[in-house]
Amino acid sequence: MAAALTPQQLSETHRPTLDQALETIGTRAYWSPHPEHPKAYGEGGAPGSLGAAEGKTAFDAVLNTRFDLDQPGTDGWTGGEVSPYGPELGVEYPHADIDVLLPAMKAGTAAWRAAGPETRALVCLEILSRISARTHELAHAVMHTSGQAFMMAFQAGGPHAQDRGLEAVAYAYQEQTRTPGSADWSKPQGKRDPLKLTKTFTTSGRGIALVIGCNTFPTWNGYPGLFASLSTGNPVLVKPHPRAVLPLALTVRIAREVLAEAGFDPNLVALAAERPGEGIAKTLAVRPEIRIIDYTGSTAFGDWLEANARQAQVYTEKAGVNTIVVDSTDDYRGLLANVAFSLSLYSGQMCTTPQNLLIPRDGITTDAGPKSYDEVVSDIAAAVNGLLGDDARAAALLGALVNPDVKARVEAAGELGEVALPSRTVANAEFPDAVVRTPVVVKLDGTKTDEDAAYLSECFGPVSFAVAVESTDAALELLRRTIREKGAMTVGAYTTSPEVERAIEDVCLDESAQLSLNLTGGVYVNQTAAFSDFHGSGGNPAANAALCDAAFVANRFRVVEVRRQA
Amino acid sequence: MAAALTPQQLSETHRPTLDQALETIGTRAYWSPHPEHPKAYGEGGAPGSLGAAEGKTAFDAVLNTRFDLDQPGTDGWTGGEVSPYGPELGVEYPHADIDVLLPAMKAGTAAWRAAGPETRALVCLEILSRISARTHELAHAVMHTSGQAFMMAFQAGGPHAQDRGLEAVAYAYQEQTRTPGSADWSKPQGKRDPLKLTKTFTTSGRGIALVIGCNTFPTWNGYPGLFASLSTGNPVLVKPHPRAVLPLALTVRIAREVLAEAGFDPNLVALAAERPGEGIAKTLAVRPEIRIIDYTGSTAFGDWLEANARQAQVYTEKAGVNTIVVDSTDDYRGLLANVAFSLSLYSGQMCTTPQNLLIPRDGITTDAGPKSYDEVVSDIAAAVNGLLGDDARAAALLGALVNPDVKARVEAAGELGEVALPSRTVANAEFPDAVVRTPVVVKLDGTKTDEDAAYLSECFGPVSFAVAVESTDAALELLRRTIREKGAMTVGAYTTSPEVERAIEDVCLDESAQLSLNLTGGVYVNQTAAFSDFHGSGGNPAANAALCDAAFVANRFRVVEVRRQA
Repeated sequence: MAAALTPQQLSETHRPTLDQALETIGTRAYWSPHPEHPKAYGEGGAPGSLGAAEGKTAFDAVLNTRFDLDQPGTDGWTGGEVSPYGPELGVEYPHADIDVLLPAMKAGTAAWRAAGPETRALVCLEILSRISARTHELAHAVMHTSGQAFMMAFQAGGPHAQDRGLEAVAYAYQEQTRTPGSADWSKPQGKRDPLKLTKTFTTSGRGIALVIGCNTFPTWNGYPGLFASLSTGNPVLVKPHPRAVLPLALTVRIAREVLAEAGFDPNLVALAAERPGEGIAKTLAVRPEIRIIDYTGSTAFGDWLEANARQAQVYTEKAGVNTIVVDSTDDYRGLLANVAFSLSLYSGQMCTTPQNLLIPRDGITTDAGPKSYDEVVSDIAAAVNGLLGDDARAAALLGALVNPDVKARVEAAGELGEVALPSRTVANAEFPDAVVRTPVVVKLDGTKTDEDAAYLSECFGPVSFAVAVESTDAALELLRRTIREKGAMTVGAYTTSPEVERAIEDVCLDESAQLSLNLTGGVYVNQTAAFSDFHGSGGNPAANAALCDAAFVANRFRVVEVRRQA
Repeated sequence: MAAALTPQQLSETHRPTLDQALETIGTRAYWSPHPEHPKAYGEGGAPGSLGAAEGKTAFDAVLNTRFDLDQPGTDGWTGGEVSPYGPELGVEYPHADIDVLLPAMKAGTAAWRAAGPETRALVCLEILSRISARTHELAHAVMHTSGQAFMMAFQAGGPHAQDRGLEAVAYAYQEQTRTPGSADWSKPQGKRDPLKLTKTFTTSGRGIALVIGCNTFPTWNGYPGLFASLSTGNPVLVKPHPRAVLPLALTVRIAREVLAEAGFDPNLVALAAERPGEGIAKTLAVRPEIRIIDYTGSTAFGDWLEANARQAQVYTEKAGVNTIVVDSTDDYRGLLANVAFSLSLYSGQMCTTPQNLLIPRDGITTDAGPKSYDEVVSDIAAAVNGLLGDDARAAALLGALVNPDVKARVEAAGELGEVALPSRTVANAEFPDAVVRTPVVVKLDGTKTDEDAAYLSECFGPVSFAVAVESTDAALELLRRTIREKGAMTVGAYTTSPEVERAIEDVCLDESAQLSLNLTGGVYVNQTAAFSDFHGSGGNPAANAALCDAAFVANRFRVVEVRRQA
């Protein structure tokens, strides 16, 4: 087909954004081209974007339809998503015969490679731009697959996810352009003529990349791998979580449209929806055509991928046990409010939510006087209760539990120890079938090794442990052990002591964990900002990669050199 | 101890070299700070460097001694190297109790991390500079362990190896300084005060790095991993090949001296020599302390490392089957001379030596008229004979066979097909015990699939196959299959046809192999230049990494962020 999107158009529209992204990953200052406020979209907002009502209408129009993508090898239809808020989505997606789809995805590789790093980056930015214009529509899709509350689904599933995708494109572009396209090489030979070669260097993708999506953050965790692989020259097959297909199906459709309009094969991006119980990720992961895998999910399957998908580069974000060390503070109220929010946001169903609060059993010093272990725990409980006392506000912060396993863990948490804060059921007025629970906080004795099984396992969901430890030193020992053995996406700490601060930093440097110190305001340990914060470190068992750094992109392509005598 | 080498001294001495290396990996023009000519060292040459006689004296002084490194955990002595030229070296190296040595190596990690990327790079450059000053000494050590002829041992084992080490340091420095040391982050909040954070970013090594050395190029293949890991903050344990310990033992001693003088723990670099048959690489490779492994050697052990050393980042250079496609040429004499040299250099014992010469069975067109398959093969044979007709010249080019396995392969090659060029024994006047053999060229029929077992296996040593193929198209199909299934460190091709040239390039881009086109002068397919050429691609089965690119260094460290409310 004729190319409707020319390289020049793409460059005029997106090159300034790419340049700003490149600059920002170097300074790591604040920046985002994707507005966070719902009112920034639609009439009077970003040009061509859907407003709130239009986005809702677009989402509703997809429900109970067949979501055709015109992919090669479609051999049937599959679906079955049920919103954590209650409704069945009723969407059917194409099921692919991978023996047909995978070869078709490779057909466009040579042209995509020949386009070069800049054009690939700009096409990716056009895809992101169209996704951004449909943030309202995607927000509903994320909400009704993940169980996130609308505002979170809007922000984390929209602009923040798009930021992470753009960040990956910027890193990929930077790494691919480190080597020049060509070079003249002339080696002196004393009195003889120099040896002369002309050399060309071409970045070449590795093969088909597989993105294995997760239930809780289908776009936020999916976009980095998708855009890192696509912009480095690889076709990308998106295998969504069976309970969170729609956000990624919408994404794939947009990507295919843009690729075709820019004159490339739309099959460079495809969807692999699976039949119930099919377990297609395991089949795909070991196919020889699959050379890159991005995965977010359980440690068990992440470990399986790392051990078995030996033909591929495997990037995993698995489970960890996140810790907050409470040593001392000069803003006790701020600490309580900040921790309460962190425990509550999306019902603790973030891979970054703190699980273990390590508190010296003899208490801590604060600006409000000394506080005993029991006081700290009950004050945190009270802060959570205060934050979530009103059902409407609570529902808007908690969202819904993503699946019955989380509900079961919340209900069983009381068996693990003394309950300092019981979970309560919250009513969602708009969606009465939503399962909404407030966090439970359980007291555990960190000086007894027979209780460590509980706090040294990930208990995904709104369950936290207030672990009494012998001292801050003991807290640091436990922190080190937890990161080393179980991994951590985040570590938080509160201290007024420079020595303690330094000691916590050393533990995090030694064990490779990202640390937030003394957060008492509107930034929370579970949130990271693209272009500035790293998500995970890639250096402890929770994840083998960080979002986003050079290591996340540099091995998705290879540089092929051709040298000729000059 | 007091630091004798201050950061300021290091910066004054080495920062200009680092800057030039950084610039050159961007332009990929010719550059090296390490002179190739033996006369550039010693009196009147590089200041402080050993001249030819001094280097020989230093080498002789080490023979038949205990090579003490003052390493923790030394529990005995081991040795037994025998030069491929005949003499026993008689050197004994410390054998380490790794349960003592590994913890000792970690002790200096925090200070090495705190030194930061620039100081680490400059310390590495000081190490390289002292190695460079002792190039003559190291040349003898490389010669009498690898069997390389002196001039090759001098150049490839000296300046070229040092170039590859420096290149790795430059890449590592560049990747580590991509993220700033600190950042101020301020996120607007409409009418409210912005959210403000101060952030620090620290590069942190992964843990102890293991370098598993090879017999043929102990320094050239060892330095990239050693310096990439050390400069990214990791202690490095060097496990040399038991037949090629001395070059790396000398390297380790120099590194330890420099580290101590710069105020760091010398145990950041240590040697792990092994007792005969101990197989210590397998033990070390799966120790939890070992987080990075660089390996050059057999495919079998490389595959084992990739499958089993799951706790480590594993960089392997294994075996491949290198091909030259002969389609046509406008410089037939140049082709013959170039190919003859490539087959002969170091008795074909380079991982980059061409093995399969694919020649259309109906012959090729040349500037000297059409040449049949038989003519091309006999002309190559004649060119090799011409090059190696004089024993003294032949010995200086061939070196010695590195081990009895290579000799056995040369002697058995005649069973594989019709011998177009028999191997002949060359006398080495200075070292009568050296085993020196000229290359053997065997004719194989590439149109018969029952003969592909020979040319589709690596036959390491001076054995090449002149494979008759149906056509150039068939040659390209076989080239593709060879790279995909067996891997290739190098591909060469001769053609005067732009279409054929383009088709060969496409195969190499698709299968990720480095291509040299129409080499007829003084550059050979088996040689690469640091800062400009990539060694291997990391994208086919011959190697999972290239020397040197960002992917080779970016995952040897992690960036740990600490953020604080501003």
